[in-house]
Amino acid sequence: MTSVAAYAAPAAKAPLERTTVERREVGEHDVLIDIKYAGICHSDIHTVREEWGRTHFPLTPGHEIAGVVTEVGPGVTRFKVGDRVGVGCMVDSCRECEQCLAGQEQYCLKGNVGTYGSVGRDGEITQGGYSTHIVVDENFTVRIPDGLSLDVAAPLLCAGITTYSPLRNWGAGPGKKVAVVGLGGLGHMAVKIAHAMGAEVTVLSQSLRKKEDGLKLGADHYYATADPRTFEELAGSFDLIVSTVSANVDFNAYLGLLKAGGTLVNVGAPEHPVSIQLFSLIGGGKNLAGSMIGGIAETQEMLDFCAEHGLGAEIELISADRINEAYERVVASDVRYRFVIDTATI
Amino acid sequence: MTSVAAYAAPAAKAPLERTTVERREVGEHDVLIDIKYAGICHSDIHTVREEWGRTHFPLTPGHEIAGVVTEVGPGVTRFKVGDRVGVGCMVDSCRECEQCLAGQEQYCLKGNVGTYGSVGRDGEITQGGYSTHIVVDENFTVRIPDGLSLDVAAPLLCAGITTYSPLRNWGAGPGKKVAVVGLGGLGHMAVKIAHAMGAEVTVLSQSLRKKEDGLKLGADHYYATADPRTFEELAGSFDLIVSTVSANVDFNAYLGLLKAGGTLVNVGAPEHPVSIQLFSLIGGGKNLAGSMIGGIAETQEMLDFCAEHGLGAEIELISADRINEAYERVVASDVRYRFVIDTATI
Repeated sequence: MTSVAAYAAPAAKAPLERTTVERREVGEHDVLIDIKYAGICHSDIHTVREEWGRTHFPLTPGHEIAGVVTEVGPGVTRFKVGDRVGVGCMVDSCRECEQCLAGQEQYCLKGNVGTYGSVGRDGEITQGGYSTHIVVDENFTVRIPDGLSLDVAAPLLCAGITTYSPLRNWGAGPGKKVAVVGLGGLGHMAVKIAHAMGAEVTVLSQSLRKKEDGLKLGADHYYATADPRTFEELAGSFDLIVSTVSANVDFNAYLGLLKAGGTLVNVGAPEHPVSIQLFSLIGGGKNLAGSMIGGIAETQEMLDFCAEHGLGAEIELISADRINEAYERVVASDVRYRFVIDTATI
Repeated sequence: MTSVAAYAAPAAKAPLERTTVERREVGEHDVLIDIKYAGICHSDIHTVREEWGRTHFPLTPGHEIAGVVTEVGPGVTRFKVGDRVGVGCMVDSCRECEQCLAGQEQYCLKGNVGTYGSVGRDGEITQGGYSTHIVVDENFTVRIPDGLSLDVAAPLLCAGITTYSPLRNWGAGPGKKVAVVGLGGLGHMAVKIAHAMGAEVTVLSQSLRKKEDGLKLGADHYYATADPRTFEELAGSFDLIVSTVSANVDFNAYLGLLKAGGTLVNVGAPEHPVSIQLFSLIGGGKNLAGSMIGGIAETQEMLDFCAEHGLGAEIELISADRINEAYERVVASDVRYRFVIDTATI
């Protein structure tokens, strides 16, 4: 075990503070990564504040990790020292079940091992990326192509794959009309990626406050959902709607914006159950779907796609001592569009 | 206009009685059909009882029609006198919109013209199949293959296509595990068709009362949903669940029976909104979908498939004077599995 510098939450709702975490020795198939940047995802905040259930403290969050390989285990074949790599929301899975064999490790039937707050194979609680180093199995490590800077690549490991996967799965591309609900960390990547895929992209945001940004990011149209005329004007318009919000919106109204056969896929999850009128689905042969991050191979595909199209996240780079302030700003939706921690400052 | 014998509801909730309806003259692209059999669909009952909204009375229901062509308009190219044909839930659509051009006339953007209770192109209210004759555009008429008896073919025009379409669309076939919720008019056809497609079929019915039937129809397994152990035992089992019930069941429990990436498609619609926990969808990348009948070309494909596999509906043939009694029995779920009216008795 090696102690490395990190920021951790000592208890639910307590501020994060500088500390150390233990990393396992580099095993047969492990790589040691010198973390350069770590994105701040809203999930980090939900977890350390125990809004999604019990958390084991102290906890170092962070599952948008970008860095450089500094050591490899003897059995490692895919990476070498000096490689630019990323780690996302998972660091392990059973690798044997139907889902793992299909490359859908995020839906592992035994449950994937999350990058932080999960129990790893060694029985230890995993600790995330707000840290200087991490040891990860090479099979859960992805390559960051040269064309992508590590700082803007970090958020792709969660926000990028979470939006890329449903866009790819439901065929966003030329001739398709795609709406993105919410222009936050996930939404801004959804706009960039859908646009790069060739779709006609509409942002549906509560107000027009970020309209200029949205159009710059690649949206063709921008509407305020607070305006009821939006739902009349856009009725039956979209092949695909990607909802990135976790507010409990009127889903039947959004289903009304789909074309027949269209899909509304949720990547942001309202805490409470939503009320769905099934006639909204049957009348137009529509789908209400969910999607959670993406598999490891698909994450690599996403990074390659983003590099090819020059897509990184829009970030605000911060020093580690500003993490707690950043959390407050994320909760207040006051970030355009992702905080990224410069881990050299930890 | 020609008067033909029919059964019609004179008012909401009044018993159906023998009367006549007017059929238009055979137009350029019309066929005159001598109706031999008409199935009784639960929708007929909902409509004449105004349970789905206002109905224009008197109304002759019936959208599971099988008969023989006795006259064709001068422009008809697809049918000739003597052909065995069927008519389902639609008799027209705009034929120009994106959906019609894609063969999805049921989702016509201007609204399809229902076989009964809709306003046709001539401005008249359409009247359905509980009748001796009907005049229908050849483009909304399908061919009943020789291998299928007309009586058991009639219910395929609604119950058959309503279940065939989602089974085909979501890939029921060898290696796929399909569950059918409810073993009624729709459910029994879903079981037959899914089995013929090569899927492993499980019936999820409230009790085990119809288990013997279900297995005979082609189900591999049969479970009672009243038994909570069913939901534990079958957790994460199915690629596709086709729900044919209109009771407001616990959809989150059924979503728990899907494999990751699986789809729960509703063809029976609960009247009231249902409560969905979106985490049920996101956690396994699952889909909640709706499906309404199918397009005309797909209806033909379904009939050809059923003929090839020797699939007809299980029916109880009745004379027209028993329609009202049959309605009571449908409402009481006391039919195995479809009433079909011998229209010679009208």
